[in-house]
Amino acid sequence: MYRGGIATSRVLRINMTDLSHKWEDVKKEHADLAGRAFTSTVVSEEVDPMCHPLREKNKIVISPGLLAGTMAPSSGRLSVGAKSPLTGGIKEANAGGLTATRLANIGVRGIIIEGMPEGDDWYSIVIGKDKCEIKRTNDYAGIGLYELIKKIWKDYPTKPGIIGAGLAGQRLYKCAGVFGNNIENSDPGRYAGRGGLGAVFGSKRIVAIISDDTGGSRPEAKEKERFDEARKVFVNSLNDHAVTGRLKDKDGNPYGGLKNYGTNILQNILSEAGGLPTRGFSSGRFDKAAKISGEAVHDLVDRTKEKFGDKAEGKYGHACHPGCIMACSNVVPYEKTGKLHVSPLEYESAWALGANLGIGELHDVAELNRLCNDIGLDTIEAGNTIAMFMEAGKIPFGDGKKAIELLKKAYDEKSIEGALVCSGTLTAGEALGVTRIPVVKGQALPAYDPRPIKGIGVTYATTTMGADHTAGYTIAAEILGIKGTVTDPRKIEKAELSQAFQATTAYIDSSGYCLFIAFCVLDDDDGFKAMTDTVDAFLGKAVDVTAYGKKVLKMEREFNKKAGFTEKDDRLPEFFYTEKLPPHNVVFDVPDEELDAVYKNM
Amino acid sequence: MYRGGIATSRVLRINMTDLSHKWEDVKKEHADLAGRAFTSTVVSEEVDPMCHPLREKNKIVISPGLLAGTMAPSSGRLSVGAKSPLTGGIKEANAGGLTATRLANIGVRGIIIEGMPEGDDWYSIVIGKDKCEIKRTNDYAGIGLYELIKKIWKDYPTKPGIIGAGLAGQRLYKCAGVFGNNIENSDPGRYAGRGGLGAVFGSKRIVAIISDDTGGSRPEAKEKERFDEARKVFVNSLNDHAVTGRLKDKDGNPYGGLKNYGTNILQNILSEAGGLPTRGFSSGRFDKAAKISGEAVHDLVDRTKEKFGDKAEGKYGHACHPGCIMACSNVVPYEKTGKLHVSPLEYESAWALGANLGIGELHDVAELNRLCNDIGLDTIEAGNTIAMFMEAGKIPFGDGKKAIELLKKAYDEKSIEGALVCSGTLTAGEALGVTRIPVVKGQALPAYDPRPIKGIGVTYATTTMGADHTAGYTIAAEILGIKGTVTDPRKIEKAELSQAFQATTAYIDSSGYCLFIAFCVLDDDDGFKAMTDTVDAFLGKAVDVTAYGKKVLKMEREFNKKAGFTEKDDRLPEFFYTEKLPPHNVVFDVPDEELDAVYKNM
Repeated sequence: MYRGGIATSRVLRINMTDLSHKWEDVKKEHADLAGRAFTSTVVSEEVDPMCHPLREKNKIVISPGLLAGTMAPSSGRLSVGAKSPLTGGIKEANAGGLTATRLANIGVRGIIIEGMPEGDDWYSIVIGKDKCEIKRTNDYAGIGLYELIKKIWKDYPTKPGIIGAGLAGQRLYKCAGVFGNNIENSDPGRYAGRGGLGAVFGSKRIVAIISDDTGGSRPEAKEKERFDEARKVFVNSLNDHAVTGRLKDKDGNPYGGLKNYGTNILQNILSEAGGLPTRGFSSGRFDKAAKISGEAVHDLVDRTKEKFGDKAEGKYGHACHPGCIMACSNVVPYEKTGKLHVSPLEYESAWALGANLGIGELHDVAELNRLCNDIGLDTIEAGNTIAMFMEAGKIPFGDGKKAIELLKKAYDEKSIEGALVCSGTLTAGEALGVTRIPVVKGQALPAYDPRPIKGIGVTYATTTMGADHTAGYTIAAEILGIKGTVTDPRKIEKAELSQAFQATTAYIDSSGYCLFIAFCVLDDDDGFKAMTDTVDAFLGKAVDVTAYGKKVLKMEREFNKKAGFTEKDDRLPEFFYTEKLPPHNVVFDVPDEELDAVYKNM
Repeated sequence: MYRGGIATSRVLRINMTDLSHKWEDVKKEHADLAGRAFTSTVVSEEVDPMCHPLREKNKIVISPGLLAGTMAPSSGRLSVGAKSPLTGGIKEANAGGLTATRLANIGVRGIIIEGMPEGDDWYSIVIGKDKCEIKRTNDYAGIGLYELIKKIWKDYPTKPGIIGAGLAGQRLYKCAGVFGNNIENSDPGRYAGRGGLGAVFGSKRIVAIISDDTGGSRPEAKEKERFDEARKVFVNSLNDHAVTGRLKDKDGNPYGGLKNYGTNILQNILSEAGGLPTRGFSSGRFDKAAKISGEAVHDLVDRTKEKFGDKAEGKYGHACHPGCIMACSNVVPYEKTGKLHVSPLEYESAWALGANLGIGELHDVAELNRLCNDIGLDTIEAGNTIAMFMEAGKIPFGDGKKAIELLKKAYDEKSIEGALVCSGTLTAGEALGVTRIPVVKGQALPAYDPRPIKGIGVTYATTTMGADHTAGYTIAAEILGIKGTVTDPRKIEKAELSQAFQATTAYIDSSGYCLFIAFCVLDDDDGFKAMTDTVDAFLGKAVDVTAYGKKVLKMEREFNKKAGFTEKDDRLPEFFYTEKLPPHNVVFDVPDEELDAVYKNM
């Protein structure tokens, strides 16, 4: 594959046992692979599926999406892969931020990190054009991530991309995500959050990977003209769509749209639909949903702008990576000062740390999110973990102050509570004697209750990733509608739907595109065509979306099989089958055969 | 099957959802089943392998061994079965104590407990001749087990057998064993400890099952004369054996023998052999092994007897159930007063809470065991769990006082540390970021390091029970020798040996005999013949030991398969394969094919 600019695309292999590195050519058979396709292929080929995920045999594989760095809109996602300490299976987690673009600009197709150093030192890896340094940087460890990123940006004034492990990952705790820095501020707001991959960084004694693209250049498509043309069509398609564009109604008021309300527009929608998991998956509706919704953030931003003018730091319509035109992210300000509180507050986080805990105070939810970002935690896993403390009666549902107090214990390395609140939903739930533990393959469920919305339950149960909405976001069809038509969420025949979403997602996760382009491309055939055209033009060959995606999925599934997974792991926890969820009072009743059909018929 | 005396053998089925019970005839096809064969069969037939072990679908099955209550020596073991909350697979745990004999005397072949009550009440089940009462006894819950047993013996002055769940089980913590009361004192010293079955009692809101045999009578064999004859031969065989009898050397000094030193005679033997797991499986030799050994207990008992005369309560050669002539148990006294400290202190417990934690003070080890007994914990699991706190650096290896302090936190229902120290080795280890977690199928390894003694490693890896020495005690051949010949412990071809031990064990666990008769019957063909004769005479038919055992094993294996287990679950943790164990500096190097051969060739 041609991966233009000055640099030819290469693979950087880092050995943490002897602290060496080497540059390798991209294997011929990896020519079309990037992002998730690259990480899952390398993990499948090189990692022993039976290895301990936090010992020397595991590897971290990092790869910018195929189109990262190009002018294709919203295409700067970064994939991180490894055997997951949370699920015990293969994992790919992706995020925005700066790193994908930086790496793409200096021609890095992927980074493979293997081995494990002896001793107690902490390292950072500095990658630039044709160079890599593994540095002993003990002063980077043991501090909060806000402080760390500021420190690194001081040490490296070019504002490099940074990813790595916070306190939680350094201590090998399974809620640990891989943080990434924001574009405009030094916040650790971009998480390849899921699967405990931050702990894999910690196990290899890596605090940060710092990517600087000085001297690099934008990757170029093999068929430049076709690429540019397709890119422009796709930009228009995204801009014109009600979800991904920025639209106003006839009175000039903003409506819908990720730019106005961000992902957190879903809070009210899911609560209305009766599918917003509330107080540990015990209700589908949260009476305080509006208070922590995207609309509430929007109003807070406007209110503080009005009050504090130029000093107000709140934002909506904020991009998570360079070149994103959907700009669904936000910056939540403090009500009292207008200063930045947390950046961003996404739907899944507002749900996990809000509705899921019965917490209806936006400030408390933002504060919990800020703490997660600082400590290095996946908000979905951390929120579900805190819910286990509530379920066990250790702190009351709805008590934001106590939840904050609990999470703050994670700063104290000696605190057992602090360890447990970072240990993941399954571990904390089992430690505390909870029997309603919402996990699949050890990973906590996200913000859609599978009882009233069966398709997402099929995805949770069957994806190779452990419970994960992004692995096959059937919500787009079941709640949000495609081309104006909603697929009945209560219908149990969802194997085909989930499979289609899972396959397409695996393709998108490899392309570098943000998954949210799906809102647009599912609705707009021309947009879809333009999107695939950019990929084809970049590679100079036609790629079959579904076939590409399925190949990735099958490989991941095979890894998991070799790690000991069977179809018995493709089930939801028992309580979803036996406890009715208000207000619709339904259980999860998709038969096992339907779940098994997703991969059997692939 | 004829199960003599006044009562005809029946099954008591208890429904905890509606608090009802009924008596059922033993099914025809269960005619020869008792003990483990009965519990594993009923669990296989009636429990959904995919059910949550601590919710309504799981069942508790209890069965006295086949010869319980008879005059056969050392045959009063009780089996408890269920789906295990610790392993997620089928489980049988057995113990001595009074309950097997009591139930056998009133013709109870087995008890099947199903369902789960609503609400917060706690129950006890009182079983007598032809009667069963389910009582709401909230005053039995939330207290230590020493107090509970005294209370129950006060409420029921016939000194009934008692089994049930302590604080740990009531809170659904996975270290929870099923306690049973001692014969002579009211201590909760008899544990069907493994697999977290105490938590299954807790999930069904049962604190105690109280068995009173008033009005009952000894079960009789179908072929009485043959039974009596065989029994007598067997008694002599056991009494004449160096391990199971009470022998003295030519100078009149006691040597070897369970009666003198109990199971804890193994502490020095294993340390000498370099196979005593020390400080979290980091060495095979413990420099303070002698201080916590059976010899040390023997000396302490003698010393306090000399000092305190009649007031001394220490003992060795103590029976764990009525009719046990091996009497390998003990009562450990306080050095300063001669009063009872803990009863008993077995090898596995002294190891788990001693060598494994680097603790060489007998008093501290006894105190930790006393606490486990009071709280309702499996000592092996609890010891390994405490080791995780030490491995994580939360308390130092070797610090008995700090370990006691930690374990005492379990009394406080609000304490997170208290929950975690009862949560099992895997959960605590993962919560604390430990990567050297010695478990198989989620259950902690017992007191023999598998690296220098491969056969026991094959048993740990492959048994249906999770790591468990009693499931196939190859130590008898590899360390203690059979007929004077030691099977090279370093030899890796151990599938056949482990399989033979596992199959025979499944038979013995069904017979009611204590596993320790194996020391004698493996050495003495006549003893073996006499032992099997008692079983055959009791049933009035010839039973093939191996075939009977294998049938049980295959059934258990099938249950586990349906629960999602594959051969990938039949592996030791990675560090046993990569970290050399001093002093012999060996790793576990049995190939996967050898492990898989145990069940493939069955």
